[in-house]
Amino acid sequence: MSKRIGLLTSGGDCAGLNAIIRAVVRRAEGYGWQVVGIREGTAGLLDRPVRAEEMSSGIFDGTILRMGGTILGTTNKNDPFAYPDGAGGTIDRSDDVVAGYRELKLDALIGIGGDGSMGILRKLAKKGGWNFVGIPKTIDNDVGSTEISIGHASAVNVAVNALDHLQPTAASHNRVMVLEVMGRDAGHIALSSGIAGGADVILIPEIPYRIEAVARHIERVRQGGRNFALVVVAEAVLTESGEPVRQRHASGGTSYGGIGHYIGDRIAATTESEVRVTVLGHVQRGGMPVSRDRLMASVFGVHAVDLIAQGSFDRMVAWQHRQAVDVPLEQAIEHFKAVEPDGALVRTARGLGISFGDG
Amino acid sequence: MSKRIGLLTSGGDCAGLNAIIRAVVRRAEGYGWQVVGIREGTAGLLDRPVRAEEMSSGIFDGTILRMGGTILGTTNKNDPFAYPDGAGGTIDRSDDVVAGYRELKLDALIGIGGDGSMGILRKLAKKGGWNFVGIPKTIDNDVGSTEISIGHASAVNVAVNALDHLQPTAASHNRVMVLEVMGRDAGHIALSSGIAGGADVILIPEIPYRIEAVARHIERVRQGGRNFALVVVAEAVLTESGEPVRQRHASGGTSYGGIGHYIGDRIAATTESEVRVTVLGHVQRGGMPVSRDRLMASVFGVHAVDLIAQGSFDRMVAWQHRQAVDVPLEQAIEHFKAVEPDGALVRTARGLGISFGDG
Amino acid sequence: MSKRIGLLTSGGDCAGLNAIIRAVVRRAEGYGWQVVGIREGTAGLLDRPVRAEEMSSGIFDGTILRMGGTILGTTNKNDPFAYPDGAGGTIDRSDDVVAGYRELKLDALIGIGGDGSMGILRKLAKKGGWNFVGIPKTIDNDVGSTEISIGHASAVNVAVNALDHLQPTAASHNRVMVLEVMGRDAGHIALSSGIAGGADVILIPEIPYRIEAVARHIERVRQGGRNFALVVVAEAVLTESGEPVRQRHASGGTSYGGIGHYIGDRIAATTESEVRVTVLGHVQRGGMPVSRDRLMASVFGVHAVDLIAQGSFDRMVAWQHRQAVDVPLEQAIEHFKAVEPDGALVRTARGLGISFGDG
Amino acid sequence: MSKRIGLLTSGGDCAGLNAIIRAVVRRAEGYGWQVVGIREGTAGLLDRPVRAEEMSSGIFDGTILRMGGTILGTTNKNDPFAYPDGAGGTIDRSDDVVAGYRELKLDALIGIGGDGSMGILRKLAKKGGWNFVGIPKTIDNDVGSTEISIGHASAVNVAVNALDHLQPTAASHNRVMVLEVMGRDAGHIALSSGIAGGADVILIPEIPYRIEAVARHIERVRQGGRNFALVVVAEAVLTESGEPVRQRHASGGTSYGGIGHYIGDRIAATTESEVRVTVLGHVQRGGMPVSRDRLMASVFGVHAVDLIAQGSFDRMVAWQHRQAVDVPLEQAIEHFKAVEPDGALVRTARGLGISFGDG
Repeated sequence: MSKRIGLLTSGGDCAGLNAIIRAVVRRAEGYGWQVVGIREGTAGLLDRPVRAEEMSSGIFDGTILRMGGTILGTTNKNDPFAYPDGAGGTIDRSDDVVAGYRELKLDALIGIGGDGSMGILRKLAKKGGWNFVGIPKTIDNDVGSTEISIGHASAVNVAVNALDHLQPTAASHNRVMVLEVMGRDAGHIALSSGIAGGADVILIPEIPYRIEAVARHIERVRQGGRNFALVVVAEAVLTESGEPVRQRHASGGTSYGGIGHYIGDRIAATTESEVRVTVLGHVQRGGMPVSRDRLMASVFGVHAVDLIAQGSFDRMVAWQHRQAVDVPLEQAIEHFKAVEPDGALVRTARGLGISFGDG
Repeated sequence: MSKRIGLLTSGGDCAGLNAIIRAVVRRAEGYGWQVVGIREGTAGLLDRPVRAEEMSSGIFDGTILRMGGTILGTTNKNDPFAYPDGAGGTIDRSDDVVAGYRELKLDALIGIGGDGSMGILRKLAKKGGWNFVGIPKTIDNDVGSTEISIGHASAVNVAVNALDHLQPTAASHNRVMVLEVMGRDAGHIALSSGIAGGADVILIPEIPYRIEAVARHIERVRQGGRNFALVVVAEAVLTESGEPVRQRHASGGTSYGGIGHYIGDRIAATTESEVRVTVLGHVQRGGMPVSRDRLMASVFGVHAVDLIAQGSFDRMVAWQHRQAVDVPLEQAIEHFKAVEPDGALVRTARGLGISFGDG
Repeated sequence: MSKRIGLLTSGGDCAGLNAIIRAVVRRAEGYGWQVVGIREGTAGLLDRPVRAEEMSSGIFDGTILRMGGTILGTTNKNDPFAYPDGAGGTIDRSDDVVAGYRELKLDALIGIGGDGSMGILRKLAKKGGWNFVGIPKTIDNDVGSTEISIGHASAVNVAVNALDHLQPTAASHNRVMVLEVMGRDAGHIALSSGIAGGADVILIPEIPYRIEAVARHIERVRQGGRNFALVVVAEAVLTESGEPVRQRHASGGTSYGGIGHYIGDRIAATTESEVRVTVLGHVQRGGMPVSRDRLMASVFGVHAVDLIAQGSFDRMVAWQHRQAVDVPLEQAIEHFKAVEPDGALVRTARGLGISFGDG
Repeated sequence: MSKRIGLLTSGGDCAGLNAIIRAVVRRAEGYGWQVVGIREGTAGLLDRPVRAEEMSSGIFDGTILRMGGTILGTTNKNDPFAYPDGAGGTIDRSDDVVAGYRELKLDALIGIGGDGSMGILRKLAKKGGWNFVGIPKTIDNDVGSTEISIGHASAVNVAVNALDHLQPTAASHNRVMVLEVMGRDAGHIALSSGIAGGADVILIPEIPYRIEAVARHIERVRQGGRNFALVVVAEAVLTESGEPVRQRHASGGTSYGGIGHYIGDRIAATTESEVRVTVLGHVQRGGMPVSRDRLMASVFGVHAVDLIAQGSFDRMVAWQHRQAVDVPLEQAIEHFKAVEPDGALVRTARGLGISFGDG
């Protein structure tokens, strides 16, 4: 029996979303089903007329797989239970979203999002009686119960690429280069890119640091004969006294742009080094997805549609031990995945002589 | 107590070898040990004087992590038990290699290689009483007992990049593009790059194909409204009648360059399509390692030295379920890892409507 | 007064065509004019119904500028005066094309092509009384009267990237790597990529070579202490006795794939070196255009529309001495631009110690 | 007769410096001459013992051509006539530099630098009676009398790459993305990358802007149906009232990081748009040089040595009209090359509908 499946992307965008969309539409067509693409996450269900359209793989000309961003659009205003009322407060508009779903006569919904979006979508699904399947995406890689979330590998790649660019100029000028990377709550991007990009110091929110230890390590590097150092800082890192760095600019609705400069200032103040700071920002979200994100996006998209075929709902697709699996959505949402301070990558970093500022 | 650790790379080179070398030297320095880099695999132990030199991380100026190839050099003449005698036959020169090891006064040896090299090195280790630890590398990803071997991700990336280049020209000219990728015994590169690069047909040695089915699928794509098709073929694929494609050129000591043209010819003969063939060749080995290969190379290099510290020998480092582990070398060598025709990736590919020529 | 401008791409595709298309449409909209995109070069005018559609920049979502290929499609069957009759011969179908132009009620036509296409389009323009303006594109860079043709920089970039991949594997294995690059009549790609990619030998059709000189140079490199060598060969190079290398494969309608293997065989036969050959092929056409091609495509597209506004026809846009200029089409077609054996780049190459096989 | 040639890099580093160094050493070896590499610009001549060493192309293993930065090192403290005295003032140490040159027994000196460095080096050459030849490098492309300076093409490429990453995330979130790029005195990087990267607004110091015009253009883009906009700002741009944006961070000795945020704030304040700001910073200097920079670096390096062979001094190598030429150094220094507000590229940008905020 033919089905109508809704599909939406929610929360911050990342590389690989379009590859998921493509996989969902192609797999659904294999079943003879119709996919309805909903615009801008739940916002498309909230507005009237509902903003959504039927999709067919005929629209994919071979390039969508390779494109960053999401052709469906997305939004950070993704909580209809607490929707901005335009006056600084919030109102509950979940009824509108539930009604929008009904209007589209959907048999099931696939939502692509991070742990925040996943929690909201699950609440909506409970309320509306939706047949819901989730696909994890987040550049931060902090969604639990899955080894891989879409977008992380590409974000790491952008950060590593930045280090590849900063290393030669650091070496040419005898400088310490500080690179602030994304990671709102977890240090995965900083950790992976720091190792792969040749960092000397990696600061992540999971491991408390002291500037004095950072400075000492940089001096040690210099005494070891190398004339430059690379420092990677996750944006979620706090000041030494545990404060978030205050934002200075009205232009940004986010917290990006602070801690890297703070760390850079402190290193400059406590070492003899010339320091330069780069805040990588939104380039980490966009751009062509790397091979791995495209591959896993394809795996997840196909598996999500298969779950609907099996009547398996309230679940999130996941990757574990070389297999596409699925887990209870509840479990995935609860298991926030921070960097394990004793995990394989931290131990590798320490084994390489990288400092976390705690030595 | 201080140790002297030998380090060599064996077999075909790939991206990420230098990142392993760097990790081994850095980790060993953490223990206060000396690494001795042996030139060109076992060839450096076989020659007199032995070709090897002490390494210190002082020689690494920040770029080695990012460089393709191996600064130690390597060779495909890597079996001293059956060494070319220069007259078309072979002789057993394993005694020379064992003596070379002794000459260097090594406490242990880390060998980086694929399953072939690993088997030979293990035999040498048995014969010479070496304390041996293996690190798996292979663009083909066919080493057993580990989810990841170094070099594969970078090779896939090169192949996907080629498909990213072929797709627009295919679409502009209404063509079928055939891309032959590496993979001497297994189809992993073809499978992963085919999915991530948007292939319509993937031919791998693990799944028998018929040209008629390939042609039918290409026609179906065209009838579906798309004016081009992408076909990825693993070099190990045989002709329809099960023969390897004969080589035509004296210049190459390898089998690259055949089957892609055969498949292209057959598609041209059985469809209306204009066909072009690209044999990707050695660009798949070189180039900057991708982030993932650099990360895993760091994990493996550190872990291998840690094994020596623990007195754990005759083992291979491996990656399983987000952890650096180690496995008996014997087991890793025996478990050749072909593409599973029922595995997650093949199922994903079929779910996307990709043909393996068996439909 | 509003105008209708036809736009077509002709001949082999290359990176940057879409950037030209975007610039033409945007500039025309600035004048309030309508652009009609013609499908597959003159083929779109030849078929009935005429294959063409009105374009507006609204269809450009920000990605077209970055995409390889041509959204209009193109064809190598681009001579209506000698059109394949399907029976191995040709017929004159130029009347159909001229009628197609009239049917579309065009005020002017912008044709994007190489010197071959430009000649044909000029003949058609004369016959049909068209107001024609040409924009030069060719990966080969052999169009006269302009310093730059669209697509060349991107093709060079692909070839250099291949050399960046081949160098480390060559060095790891002590090999000579031969890379065959495109260039049907001229050696520009081979020359520029050879210099920028670190080649030791560059063979181009403009400079006769002897294998003996090539072999001698490779030996000299080896005696100088380097263990590898890189050789770049333009596809248009002939055998030592002046013959084109015969094609072996029915799948390819082109001459790619021959001379590189011949050169590799001959080097293997005359030196002690292990040799590997890579034929780069169609990846040189596709892929994202590099910055320079996008920039120049924008310059040319805008200038071509401006010429129509000025009533300047039978001209080709060109780049000379940091200026967008235009030249008589006739002059551009006549001035085939081969590599000057005494030019700046050949002298640079010789100054670097690169051999052209004529030493 | 054999010569000893000094070689130094001065001022900010950029991609392509190592390619110049390689070309100089190779060409000098062709003449049988010795190149002496001086460390960190004139600082290497100023210190005692003089920091310099003889170079041979044997040290170049095939990778130096591809590496960013400068293996000789460089410094921004490059004026020995006004050298920091460590107490906040300056002293004249030019005598030390002149003496250092003499100590090395050099016959000539090749200096690679921007217009600032070139002026200082020329003064030193006059004072010391040096045989001096200059090679222009600057990411800003503002050196006069040459169409090309080394490093600019690579910096533009990094900026375009950033726009390629920002466009999809801008489109996914309906955002205005502001990208601040380098260019201390000139807007060349902003202009070229803005055109090639699909910017809607480009702000450069050569063209005065008003925020009101910027805001109006962004609204127009939105009314035209596009949901995002890209704004590129050169770091040298001032506030609307003509003030430089004050720096906030002790960590940076430069002025990077200001104006982009100012422009973003003002756009957010005057439009309905959600705005995000990225300050690209030092990644623009480093990284692999693009093909063009490597090619031109090779041309310049060879030509500079040839000038010495001809006894032509007090000159700078340059590229004009497809030829390697050389010009009086004095003329090059005087002709600062800003963006011409009526030049080909500004006209192209306007033709594409790009706003400079002056409309």
